[in-house]
Amino acid sequence: MKNYSIEQAAQCLKQAKDVVILCHQSPDGDTMGSACAIYHALKSIGLRARVECADSFPEKFGFLFEEVQKEEFSPRFVLAVDVADEKLLGAKIREKYPRIDLCIDHHPSNTGYAEHLLLEADSAAAAEILFLVISSMGVEITPQIAAGIYTGIATDTGCFKFSNTTPRSHRIAAQMMEYGAPVARINELVFDTKTKNKLAFETCALESLEYYFENRCALIPVTMAMMERCGVTYEEIDDIAALPRQIEGVEVGLTLKQRDEHGFKISVRTKASCDASAICRKLGGGGHARAAGCAVEGTLEEAKEKILDVVQEFLEETR
Amino acid sequence: MKNYSIEQAAQCLKQAKDVVILCHQSPDGDTMGSACAIYHALKSIGLRARVECADSFPEKFGFLFEEVQKEEFSPRFVLAVDVADEKLLGAKIREKYPRIDLCIDHHPSNTGYAEHLLLEADSAAAAEILFLVISSMGVEITPQIAAGIYTGIATDTGCFKFSNTTPRSHRIAAQMMEYGAPVARINELVFDTKTKNKLAFETCALESLEYYFENRCALIPVTMAMMERCGVTYEEIDDIAALPRQIEGVEVGLTLKQRDEHGFKISVRTKASCDASAICRKLGGGGHARAAGCAVEGTLEEAKEKILDVVQEFLEETR
Repeated sequence: MKNYSIEQAAQCLKQAKDVVILCHQSPDGDTMGSACAIYHALKSIGLRARVECADSFPEKFGFLFEEVQKEEFSPRFVLAVDVADEKLLGAKIREKYPRIDLCIDHHPSNTGYAEHLLLEADSAAAAEILFLVISSMGVEITPQIAAGIYTGIATDTGCFKFSNTTPRSHRIAAQMMEYGAPVARINELVFDTKTKNKLAFETCALESLEYYFENRCALIPVTMAMMERCGVTYEEIDDIAALPRQIEGVEVGLTLKQRDEHGFKISVRTKASCDASAICRKLGGGGHARAAGCAVEGTLEEAKEKILDVVQEFLEETR
Repeated sequence: MKNYSIEQAAQCLKQAKDVVILCHQSPDGDTMGSACAIYHALKSIGLRARVECADSFPEKFGFLFEEVQKEEFSPRFVLAVDVADEKLLGAKIREKYPRIDLCIDHHPSNTGYAEHLLLEADSAAAAEILFLVISSMGVEITPQIAAGIYTGIATDTGCFKFSNTTPRSHRIAAQMMEYGAPVARINELVFDTKTKNKLAFETCALESLEYYFENRCALIPVTMAMMERCGVTYEEIDDIAALPRQIEGVEVGLTLKQRDEHGFKISVRTKASCDASAICRKLGGGGHARAAGCAVEGTLEEAKEKILDVVQEFLEETR
C-alpha cells in the first residue's frame, strides 16, 4: 500500500481507463455521494465508469443516480470510496474485484487494503476529499457533482451538527450550493421526510427504549418482527441510531438491529467520555470516535449481553 | 420609520449610549443569539448595555448569557433584534419602552414600528445581519460574539437544513467556528440533547398525531395536561412543530399548543405548495413562507376548527 496525495490521486484518475467505483455495503450518503460525484467527474473527461455496491441504494438517495448509467465493460481501474475495510465491500464484490487500485477515504481505521490510499482522517466526509480531488483534476463542478459532494458532507455531519464538522465542511457546502446542488430538495428528502410507517416505527422504538448503568447507557432493540409490524425496511430506519445518545446524561447510545436470524448489527454512539470505535473494536467492528459499529451473533438477549459487558467496562474506566 | 443600511446601523450603534437590547417573547435561538452578539460587541467598545425579554430564557440557551451582566441604567437607545412586530415584545416591555430606536430584523412581515429599520428579508437569520453590522463597527469577533451569531444562524436554519439556508449562512458559520464559537457544544445542547421527560412527551405527541384532508395535513394537539403528565415546559417542546410537516405527503403541518385556559398557539409549517405566513395572517398571525404562527382563543376543538378551516381553503386552492 502506498499513500497518495490529493494531486497524485487526481493525476492517477485522469489517466485511468474504464473505472469501476465501489461503495461500501449498507451504503450511506457519503459513499453514494462520493461515488456519484467522481462518476460524473470521470464521465465529463470522457472516461467509461460505473458504480457498484453489494446492496441496493436506498430510495431516498435515488436522486443521486438519476443520471448514472449502468455501462458494461471490463474494468481497468478499481476505485473504492469511503470504504475503510475491504470486508465492507461485501463478499461478492470482493471476489469480483480482488485488486483495488485506489481507495479514497476518511476513516482513521482504514486497513490499507488498496494498492494506493488517499486518506484524510480529519475530513468530516470522504466527499470533502473527493471535492479536492475533482477540483485538482481540473473538472468543472456540475450540479450533479455538487449534489454528490453536498450529500456526502451533509449526511456524514448530520447536516453540520456532529462534532466532525469543520469550517471547510461549511465552505465546501456553500460552494456546492453555488455550483447548483439542489440542497433544499436534498435536505428535505434526506433529513426531513418520514413515511407514516417510519413514524409508527419511531413510536415503537421510543416505547421500547431501555436504560442501563444508572442511565449512562440507553439502548433501542430493533427486531425483524418490529420492523415487519411497522412496515419499514432495514435501510429506512438507519437514523434511529442517533436517538439514544441524545438523551441527557446518556454517554453511550446503542441500537441493536436484527439483520437476520443469526444476529444483530450494533450501532454505538458516544459522548466525549467514551470511544465508540474502541468499544466496537472489542467485538470485531470499528468506526469513528463518536460513531462506530459492529456485528454480533445470537439472540437479542445474547447480543445485549455482549455489547453491555463491553460498555460497562468502558463506563467504569471513565467514572 | 426610516430604512437603514448595514453601515448606517453600525455607525448609529457605535455612537449610541446606554443601550437596551430587546428580544421577542417566547425567545428563540436567533433573537437570543443576536442579542448576545451585539451585547458583547457594544461592551467591547465600552458602552453600557443590557438584554431584556418578556419571557425568561430557556435553560438550554443559558450558555449565551453566561457572561451577560444585568446592569441597571436609564437607557438612551433601544434596539430590538429579530422582532417583526412590537406586539411580539410583550405588553410589559412595550409599555416600558414605547420608542424603539432601531430594529434589526429579517422577517418580511416586519411592521416598521421602529424609528429606524435594518431589514434583510432574504437573510436566513437576524444573526447574519448582526454579524455584518458588528463587522462594519470594526469590532473584533470574540468567541462570545461568534457563539451568539452561530446560534442564531444554526437555530433559524434548523442547523442548515431549512430552505432559507444560503451559501452566506454556511460561510458565516465557518468564520464563527474559526473565531472560536464552541459549535460542537452548542449543537449538542441545542439540537442533540433531550431530557427523559422530553422523550416521553415526544412519544405522547407521536401517539396523538392526527391526519386531515387525505393526509395532506397532519396535526399534533398539545394540551397543558399532556405537558404536565410528561413533566415538560412550554419552551422545552418548541421543536415539536417541525414534526408533522416531515411526514411524506403532508403539505401543512400544524402544532396546537395550549398556552393557558383561554387558547392555543398554533405553529404552521408548510411545504412549497402552501404559504404558511398567508395561512397565519388569516388568523392575525404571521411569519415566513414555510414557517409561521398565530394564536387562537378557545378549546382544543374550537382551535382545531379555526385553523383547519383556513388550511382547507388553502389546500383547495393548490389542488
